[in-house]
Amino acid sequence: MDEKKIRTEVGELGEFKLIDRLTKPFETKNPTTTVGIGDDCAVITPNGDKMVVTTDLLLEGIHFDLTYFPLKHLGYKAVVVNLSDVYAMNAIPSQITVSIGISKRFGVEDLEELYAGIKLACDRYEVDLIGGDTSSSYTGLTISITAIGHADAKDIVYRNGAQINDLICVSGNLGAAYMGLQLLEREKRVFVSNSNTAPQLKGYDYILERILKPEAGRKTINALREKGITPTAMIDISDGLSSELLHICKNSNKGCRVYLERIPIDEQTVQMANEFGIEPSIAALNGGEDYELLFTVPITDADKIKTVEGISIIGHITDAAKGAFLVTPSEDEVMLTAQGWNAFTKE
Amino acid sequence: MDEKKIRTEVGELGEFKLIDRLTKPFETKNPTTTVGIGDDCAVITPNGDKMVVTTDLLLEGIHFDLTYFPLKHLGYKAVVVNLSDVYAMNAIPSQITVSIGISKRFGVEDLEELYAGIKLACDRYEVDLIGGDTSSSYTGLTISITAIGHADAKDIVYRNGAQINDLICVSGNLGAAYMGLQLLEREKRVFVSNSNTAPQLKGYDYILERILKPEAGRKTINALREKGITPTAMIDISDGLSSELLHICKNSNKGCRVYLERIPIDEQTVQMANEFGIEPSIAALNGGEDYELLFTVPITDADKIKTVEGISIIGHITDAAKGAFLVTPSEDEVMLTAQGWNAFTKE
Repeated sequence: MDEKKIRTEVGELGEFKLIDRLTKPFETKNPTTTVGIGDDCAVITPNGDKMVVTTDLLLEGIHFDLTYFPLKHLGYKAVVVNLSDVYAMNAIPSQITVSIGISKRFGVEDLEELYAGIKLACDRYEVDLIGGDTSSSYTGLTISITAIGHADAKDIVYRNGAQINDLICVSGNLGAAYMGLQLLEREKRVFVSNSNTAPQLKGYDYILERILKPEAGRKTINALREKGITPTAMIDISDGLSSELLHICKNSNKGCRVYLERIPIDEQTVQMANEFGIEPSIAALNGGEDYELLFTVPITDADKIKTVEGISIIGHITDAAKGAFLVTPSEDEVMLTAQGWNAFTKE
Repeated sequence: MDEKKIRTEVGELGEFKLIDRLTKPFETKNPTTTVGIGDDCAVITPNGDKMVVTTDLLLEGIHFDLTYFPLKHLGYKAVVVNLSDVYAMNAIPSQITVSIGISKRFGVEDLEELYAGIKLACDRYEVDLIGGDTSSSYTGLTISITAIGHADAKDIVYRNGAQINDLICVSGNLGAAYMGLQLLEREKRVFVSNSNTAPQLKGYDYILERILKPEAGRKTINALREKGITPTAMIDISDGLSSELLHICKNSNKGCRVYLERIPIDEQTVQMANEFGIEPSIAALNGGEDYELLFTVPITDADKIKTVEGISIIGHITDAAKGAFLVTPSEDEVMLTAQGWNAFTKE
């Protein structure tokens, strides 16, 4: 017998029942969460000296393409990109709010998929969903998430603390999400011109996972804490390495030298870049959505940082007057420019 | 000489410069705001036992119509509707984040208008803008705001604390925003069929202000604190009196009796309702967007509450078994049903 896919119209439920149905599987786990969904506001009992707050707006067609982005992955990623900002302050995320705007194209079951991804991220990162808003929309899907985290005052790391001679470090590897996105876009174009073609995605699961299901920097933050390392400056890499390096340099009023051959790039990223005729380092420098952490540590922490798995030292901080440069293997110095993802010029 | 209106394209500036330009006029004023815009997260130093968090998503075409909604008013209102939720917890708002998605239709000067309204609300209610996100959008304007407030644990008022015999109170008057909206919609229809007609809005400035530039419940909260009254339950009226009364009854597991002739309705609301052939009480019961406060107080506070300006006692809480009813002047009892604004069935 054929299993018929059930579709419940959102209008059948109405706003309150929809919210009940979507948020029922969520349980609050943080002792700082006093009251979650169900009143005019959520209530938090602060823990630690400081709270950090960040927010992101994701719009269909601009930030994601549902032709290849499964709703569950999208829900997961929408949470993760916010948590990434919290870890980038060296804070621990504890709560999120999720607002969605949905057109008639989406049934209740679609939204349950989206919320299954949101729940997976909440469970994995131990954060509580404490509120939100649900609305119809004339066009597509809108997701707005706000994340809250906690830290002791002494632990918070800003973008502006980098000092001359500090080592510049990056977690994981860069450019993978960008090449994963190029692959998905290519296969979409092929599919549009001939819908009988199956997408050719084999052998590229790592770069696909990096774009479809990225992770936030918890592992890095925990490892640094274990080793007793507090970065002097930190930022998460959402717009590409160049753009983020320039943020740290500008905010810290410093310059930098980063070495091209030290930038960590995965083998699949290199392969896919070669297929596309792109220099892999360009993907790493200017591609976005890596959600790795870029940070600086005092040179006296050099030995300690080398023992942290998955961290690469890619350069050092200089005097502001020396500018921000990339050093190639042939020792050419190329001035860094932010060609990162710009939501406005892409339109 | 003709003054030519300057229009700067958003794409000319790019995201970072746009954010700088829009947020430059904002200064943080709350001692709890440690760091505002400019890093991965804002940083808050909690003050008081508890923090409250609320969020609202406003979508063009669903929640507002720019044919008659000035952008500055929209910015003001977008903040106020969030602060209203904070006051409804008997908390004091302190910070907001603002995310916007904008189509090419909007120039930088338009966004400056929007942010001028946001700033006016921030100044008037003494809240700090501490973060946000800015993105392009394919269609229209999206505004997502999150508000944070503070309160001592003993002061927080939920929806679920109403007790039998408690007095049901409401601030200000109801139905005005709904009738203001009807007026604007009527004049828009007239304008669409004949663009040479000037809109007939004279004599209705109060109900227009209620829809275009509502205020949040600060005055009420301050007055209650001054008199030493802590409500047993409270909610803000965004979906109409009926719907909110039912929320309090359901959450408190109680019933209620409210008296039709006691529901406060402004003269302009009555006039406009008469023009439209609508029963004014229907506008008060089912019209939305009043942003007044609905709350319950112990009957022992009856004398005190009568001395608070602008508060009407409209009924009392009963046993759940007695249901939730509206009592007419002829002593008929009509069961309350939530016919409030439903963003999903309106589509």
